[in-house]
Amino acid sequence: MKPDTVDHLRTQPMAANDLSIAYIGGGSRQWAPTLIQDLALAPYSGEVRLFDANLPAARKNARFGNWVQDTKETRGQWDYAAVEDIESALDGADIVVMSTQYDPRETFVHDLMIPKQFGIYGAVSATIGPGGIMRALRTIPVYREFADQVRTHCPNAWVFNFTNPVHFVTRALYDEFPDIKALGLCHEVSGTRSHLASIAERELGVSATREDIEVNVKGINHFTWIDEARYRGHDLWPILEDVADLKEARQQFSTEEMADESPFVDHWQVTWELFRRFGLLPAAGDRHLVEYANSFLQGGRAGLNRWGVKRTDSAYRAKHWTPAASDQTTDVEAWLAGDQDLELNSSRETFTEILAGLVGDDPYVTNVNLPNVGQVTGLESDTIVETNALVRTDSVSPLSAGSFPRPVRSMVGTHIDTIETVIDASRSGDLDRAFQGFLIDPQVRSLTPEDAATLFAELVDSQVDYLDDWDLTGSTVLSETE
Amino acid sequence: MKPDTVDHLRTQPMAANDLSIAYIGGGSRQWAPTLIQDLALAPYSGEVRLFDANLPAARKNARFGNWVQDTKETRGQWDYAAVEDIESALDGADIVVMSTQYDPRETFVHDLMIPKQFGIYGAVSATIGPGGIMRALRTIPVYREFADQVRTHCPNAWVFNFTNPVHFVTRALYDEFPDIKALGLCHEVSGTRSHLASIAERELGVSATREDIEVNVKGINHFTWIDEARYRGHDLWPILEDVADLKEARQQFSTEEMADESPFVDHWQVTWELFRRFGLLPAAGDRHLVEYANSFLQGGRAGLNRWGVKRTDSAYRAKHWTPAASDQTTDVEAWLAGDQDLELNSSRETFTEILAGLVGDDPYVTNVNLPNVGQVTGLESDTIVETNALVRTDSVSPLSAGSFPRPVRSMVGTHIDTIETVIDASRSGDLDRAFQGFLIDPQVRSLTPEDAATLFAELVDSQVDYLDDWDLTGSTVLSETE
Amino acid sequence: MKPDTVDHLRTQPMAANDLSIAYIGGGSRQWAPTLIQDLALAPYSGEVRLFDANLPAARKNARFGNWVQDTKETRGQWDYAAVEDIESALDGADIVVMSTQYDPRETFVHDLMIPKQFGIYGAVSATIGPGGIMRALRTIPVYREFADQVRTHCPNAWVFNFTNPVHFVTRALYDEFPDIKALGLCHEVSGTRSHLASIAERELGVSATREDIEVNVKGINHFTWIDEARYRGHDLWPILEDVADLKEARQQFSTEEMADESPFVDHWQVTWELFRRFGLLPAAGDRHLVEYANSFLQGGRAGLNRWGVKRTDSAYRAKHWTPAASDQTTDVEAWLAGDQDLELNSSRETFTEILAGLVGDDPYVTNVNLPNVGQVTGLESDTIVETNALVRTDSVSPLSAGSFPRPVRSMVGTHIDTIETVIDASRSGDLDRAFQGFLIDPQVRSLTPEDAATLFAELVDSQVDYLDDWDLTGSTVLSETE
Amino acid sequence: MKPDTVDHLRTQPMAANDLSIAYIGGGSRQWAPTLIQDLALAPYSGEVRLFDANLPAARKNARFGNWVQDTKETRGQWDYAAVEDIESALDGADIVVMSTQYDPRETFVHDLMIPKQFGIYGAVSATIGPGGIMRALRTIPVYREFADQVRTHCPNAWVFNFTNPVHFVTRALYDEFPDIKALGLCHEVSGTRSHLASIAERELGVSATREDIEVNVKGINHFTWIDEARYRGHDLWPILEDVADLKEARQQFSTEEMADESPFVDHWQVTWELFRRFGLLPAAGDRHLVEYANSFLQGGRAGLNRWGVKRTDSAYRAKHWTPAASDQTTDVEAWLAGDQDLELNSSRETFTEILAGLVGDDPYVTNVNLPNVGQVTGLESDTIVETNALVRTDSVSPLSAGSFPRPVRSMVGTHIDTIETVIDASRSGDLDRAFQGFLIDPQVRSLTPEDAATLFAELVDSQVDYLDDWDLTGSTVLSETE
Repeated sequence: MKPDTVDHLRTQPMAANDLSIAYIGGGSRQWAPTLIQDLALAPYSGEVRLFDANLPAARKNARFGNWVQDTKETRGQWDYAAVEDIESALDGADIVVMSTQYDPRETFVHDLMIPKQFGIYGAVSATIGPGGIMRALRTIPVYREFADQVRTHCPNAWVFNFTNPVHFVTRALYDEFPDIKALGLCHEVSGTRSHLASIAERELGVSATREDIEVNVKGINHFTWIDEARYRGHDLWPILEDVADLKEARQQFSTEEMADESPFVDHWQVTWELFRRFGLLPAAGDRHLVEYANSFLQGGRAGLNRWGVKRTDSAYRAKHWTPAASDQTTDVEAWLAGDQDLELNSSRETFTEILAGLVGDDPYVTNVNLPNVGQVTGLESDTIVETNALVRTDSVSPLSAGSFPRPVRSMVGTHIDTIETVIDASRSGDLDRAFQGFLIDPQVRSLTPEDAATLFAELVDSQVDYLDDWDLTGSTVLSETE
Repeated sequence: MKPDTVDHLRTQPMAANDLSIAYIGGGSRQWAPTLIQDLALAPYSGEVRLFDANLPAARKNARFGNWVQDTKETRGQWDYAAVEDIESALDGADIVVMSTQYDPRETFVHDLMIPKQFGIYGAVSATIGPGGIMRALRTIPVYREFADQVRTHCPNAWVFNFTNPVHFVTRALYDEFPDIKALGLCHEVSGTRSHLASIAERELGVSATREDIEVNVKGINHFTWIDEARYRGHDLWPILEDVADLKEARQQFSTEEMADESPFVDHWQVTWELFRRFGLLPAAGDRHLVEYANSFLQGGRAGLNRWGVKRTDSAYRAKHWTPAASDQTTDVEAWLAGDQDLELNSSRETFTEILAGLVGDDPYVTNVNLPNVGQVTGLESDTIVETNALVRTDSVSPLSAGSFPRPVRSMVGTHIDTIETVIDASRSGDLDRAFQGFLIDPQVRSLTPEDAATLFAELVDSQVDYLDDWDLTGSTVLSETE
Repeated sequence: MKPDTVDHLRTQPMAANDLSIAYIGGGSRQWAPTLIQDLALAPYSGEVRLFDANLPAARKNARFGNWVQDTKETRGQWDYAAVEDIESALDGADIVVMSTQYDPRETFVHDLMIPKQFGIYGAVSATIGPGGIMRALRTIPVYREFADQVRTHCPNAWVFNFTNPVHFVTRALYDEFPDIKALGLCHEVSGTRSHLASIAERELGVSATREDIEVNVKGINHFTWIDEARYRGHDLWPILEDVADLKEARQQFSTEEMADESPFVDHWQVTWELFRRFGLLPAAGDRHLVEYANSFLQGGRAGLNRWGVKRTDSAYRAKHWTPAASDQTTDVEAWLAGDQDLELNSSRETFTEILAGLVGDDPYVTNVNLPNVGQVTGLESDTIVETNALVRTDSVSPLSAGSFPRPVRSMVGTHIDTIETVIDASRSGDLDRAFQGFLIDPQVRSLTPEDAATLFAELVDSQVDYLDDWDLTGSTVLSETE
Repeated sequence: MKPDTVDHLRTQPMAANDLSIAYIGGGSRQWAPTLIQDLALAPYSGEVRLFDANLPAARKNARFGNWVQDTKETRGQWDYAAVEDIESALDGADIVVMSTQYDPRETFVHDLMIPKQFGIYGAVSATIGPGGIMRALRTIPVYREFADQVRTHCPNAWVFNFTNPVHFVTRALYDEFPDIKALGLCHEVSGTRSHLASIAERELGVSATREDIEVNVKGINHFTWIDEARYRGHDLWPILEDVADLKEARQQFSTEEMADESPFVDHWQVTWELFRRFGLLPAAGDRHLVEYANSFLQGGRAGLNRWGVKRTDSAYRAKHWTPAASDQTTDVEAWLAGDQDLELNSSRETFTEILAGLVGDDPYVTNVNLPNVGQVTGLESDTIVETNALVRTDSVSPLSAGSFPRPVRSMVGTHIDTIETVIDASRSGDLDRAFQGFLIDPQVRSLTPEDAATLFAELVDSQVDYLDDWDLTGSTVLSETE
């Protein structure tokens, strides 16, 4: 046999000057302009196909994308187009970006408000706890379908998933199509590294950015933990242990003080408390941590505010949604209309750095959500974990992050049990099985058994239009609570 | 070399007609007379050495033991003696019985009352949850000492541990002396089998006792689960699934209805609810189950009563304690004084059946708490699990009980994490580490972080005399909450 | 809902007086008369349906079965019938016996002779090594088909598999139908217990049978190991350690001495050598052990004989085959013809004791081959392991047997890797994948790579008619060695 | 508490311009000059302390080191000194290099020649098989002592171990001092990457070096396997599959053809054969592979030569040893004497690249031997595995390399069992236990049991002076074979 039988196409890598990018959810008002600007600043070229249930929104973003190319000092050359069906977007794609959301007025607002009526004062209610699980029930079937389409239309593509709940959703992609090359991405760990940089600046008298901070990070998205941190080789651990005993790490906040704060404010008080108790540094915003380490929610609004955390207002979330039909003028519209000047800026999201690694430029290390193939020992195989990974040409390799001390592993493991139970239930649409995952969530365990069932039924009832893939009529928990 | 060098003594089995039994806690008012009667009815002979911190109580029981021999139609011949130190009790023993308790007025009453002030309405507060963990902190060091004494004085003895919390205490015995032959014993599973017998009687129209019911049981003590049940080969599962839908399995109780009930009443409503939700049948009294599946506690007194469960009154517990110094006349005193007739009755505890198996009479199958050597897959090695075991001559072999469905495994696993964290902490007396185990207990997770710390500190403070083996002065959680 | 909806049939246990037994391979000349006599002596009744590719042989055995009932003082009442198809045999069976064999002249003789040409002097060549793997290749597809038939016709039946290689074959049954209730049975461990009884008799001056010997046994069939042995509670271990140093445990045999021995002779010299080296007592005949601990084969005939082991002559095996068409008069024929008196004797196989346990008579403990659900820790899940199990009404529960010291686990694990590789290959008939399992067999590893491939190809070629379910044409190893 | 209590020294990273390097075995004739030249070319400075049992040799190398600095255009500034005791070398070191060897005339020659007398035709006999195990027995106790010294004198140092058998030796370091930061290093994988680069050049028509080849590599040292290989993103797998079928991958060599070859020649025929059989590409020289995949040894000299592999001549090994007392003039002597010109060249060993990563220059990915913390799933924890790792400032993180197909895992696992058994034996010097590890080695399993024992005893006897830490007098295997 001759070696010229080798299928060269098959062995061909992605071409950095001819990339094909599919953007599912490309009508987004916030994320799409960001990505477009980041791409404009990256030294690559290709086409970007935007798909969105809201086609006009996708078209507007495509127009914006091409306008940026035409008018700006960009580095690469990108052609944008909105497409009418997902197949056209995915067909032959090298890169797939997934970032989608339902109308929060019909979904997310319920996730926030209904649990509150049962005394569950979730800060975000978007990735775990009753609201987060509900969001998972809506989203998992959609992403199963996406994974199936990827298998058909672009099985070798790298899929960047930004959609929450990242752990549930990324798990659904892999559960449906185990060979998918999907990365679950989130910037919470970056935020922690930035905070550590500011500590290093103050304590070591240096100048530092998050890129100077190397950490060993592990866990599940929004409940990640750091057990090593260095500023250019300086071990930050003894510094953290000292700072944890300072007044700044033992602040209390009143409800009045928090009244005018943004819901995104982060005083790190939850972080410091968990660090003192468990000896590891949590690496996500306090507003997320409280939903996983749920005792911080148990004091209601005052109890939450006391830690410097503020609940995301449902009105806020509804208002900041991204539909094109919104009555506000968006930045994109203002830029296109010339009413506002666009200064191209990198978002400091990791998307383009990862892309650079994949096309063979600089290797890049960042935190990524991936199936556990050993990077976190003590957590089960295949569940989605977040650790650092090394991005090289057409490959992403998780770094071994080791294991957890038992108490932390226990807390993380409980959430994995919920996630895996819901994923298992989603295979057949078994709502009663999903309810088992709901029942073992620590937030739900603070309710009586009756309240837990009623809460679940009310949540389902409020969003029944988004739950077509679940067996609602055969559900015992629904029929019992009618 | 000649075979006559074999050390025949070493290979000699226990002699059923010359057994040496040590009873640690032999001054007990309730358990000792029971054991004495059971032994009187067993076809074995030997000596029983009673050791108790309360020596007069042990002496009274020894007198009773010998009196029973003298006056009754007993089967074997037993000599009883109270001994002044534990070494004398253990030296060369074949069998060691351990059953001890501190004065509940100084300990258990606090375990019940202090958590209640924080809204934790534990039904028993003796084996898990804040009260149970507290009891573990007091008891583990004592049983480490006992294990050490067994190693020195009777390393080959079979040790029967009846002291609660059985999982913590049995784990401490093995952690201290890994080669100990200790069995953690409890009659909750027997109770479930008796209940199943009554169901079989009614549904199958037969006559049945617990001995007719074969089950596959697994879990940890007081949180064991059954996934197979047969009455003489009849599969009871479809019957259970039907009964779970009957009115009898969906009863609700008012606080008024429960007012005059004994705290030991068991309406199986918690059992049925868990069976319906998770598909496995819990095999412990409802009053224990609610402390492990803690959502049943979240409704306070009314919420608990609603399931037919009543909180153990602390006054009740204090009153029914067993010290010889009690002002009540005990049965033993009445029998010895001739004021009351003694009719020898088997207690239906499994002690004598296990003894029969160990000395080479009938093999016997019963539920036993032992280190996990594979009998429950999915739970970690070495932790103490409860499953059936086969008792044969000088051997006890656990039966493979298989694995759990994930949601149940998750609930069981969380408690194992608390147990193992506390055991680990007890190796060095690290109270802050023990507090980590406390923090991840689901009952405690219903408190705010501040309340959790305060509750822990108050519990420690209330019983400080019993916590000599713990590092109280170095504890951060204690110093923070002063 | 009313409890009378319970499907009473479904919960009905096997009726000991109305058993339905299917015997696959019921034309056997040796095993069938044994089973018939054992059943005649058991206090149960029912029907036995004999199925065999050789229908006349099955008919003769049926005639014999009924003749025994008519003429003998039997305890139960059994009706025998030969059936023409397997479906008729299995339909509604409570018990299925599987014991089949191909004509050894066309198969087994090759398994013995071809490896010998390559210097592999296997003693039995029937369960591991090149010959045993070859037998597995022939037999696995047939037993997949049997398992499928059981699923269709009698999914709740208890299946007794006596067919070798027991580990491969029992694994195939479970791989095809995971809910099958199949037991792999073998009398090698019984033989070891009998030998231990004779040692106990001599060393302790007692009278003992194998029933007096309790052991902890674990491993895979024909490579099982004992790490605890007691005679009525007497620990036999120190005795074994002494005996292992006696002359009797260090005998050497010449080829002349072995010339007239039966191939079934067992001098326990391999057993003692492995005991001395590894500290555990192997529990299978020496002739089997040498094929697993293959260094005993490396000295050829003299080397094997030196340990008191003799190779099974292929002529012997061919001659003692069981077809009805044999030119010899069988015992059954002689009994039926009245030429020979039949005295009913129990075979001391464990079949009827297991049956007794399953129908609810005495619980029974014996060694059984079952999927690993934790009974042997350190060996992987689901692979077929042999340990003790407790037989009770309609249930068989393995006893936890613990783990192995590493070197023994390593040796056992290597064979499991071969078994599992071949099973995996059999799912798709991938012969090259099966060859990987062949290559890692320690007997094969004593060959050069070229010889290993040639040996495999010659074995396949010699028995190609029995390998319909394998992809012979797509095999690289076959095409390379043509 | 104030943050100024932070121990700044403790958090200080290594200073690239003030490094302290200890070189254990610094008298080496080959490795030391290489290292000295590599350091001279690296942009770092500091001191290097050479320790060697042969002090004059260390002194000569120190002189050479300083001479290079004085006379060459070097990048950094290094001070060399020979020290008289290991404590002086290690005290406060940042980096420790370990590379030692006994006089091969007294050790290695026996490792090669004695097994050959038993028919074991090992190609190198230095890392596995009877000779390799023997070398491990000699070396492990020494490296336990080194690890203990590191714990005392420089616990935070990075230790580079180059001493064979790398897996045994690196394991001993960690077994003795679990917090040691030791890396086991070897260039075999680099060689494979170079070979892949040449394939890429030919098949893709490009120019390539090993740095252009990215692989996923895993296994144990000298028995590593690649399952992904890319040239700048081009998937090389389909190319390898084609090449494996070419004539070049199916060559045979005669003993005559091999007669004049260097023992280090590598024709990749073993590599291709294993690739064809098992579907993974081995990543070590063929001469090493044959000792792990031992069937290649089974044909003796001709059988080995047939694969293009040649046995390392023991004379060769003895001659190329490195003692200063050697009668040959060494390069170093020639350079110092001015008889030969020194042109500074990088060795292309990875030492300086790793050093660059550790001091905070470019992150670097290379294969390293480290305890398994999850980087290879399916192999046990803590055993030393070889995979890629990412080197960053003061940290080395293994990359997740996934699992093996079962047959390969089985072969690798068998060697791990030998390694771990010997390590376990070395804890107490139990020679009989070490012999168990010897017995399960596949090379040894091709011997009869008697030969295996005799071989072991002869090897021990030949090198008894190097085995002080083993219990020779209590060994059963030695006493039996006297």
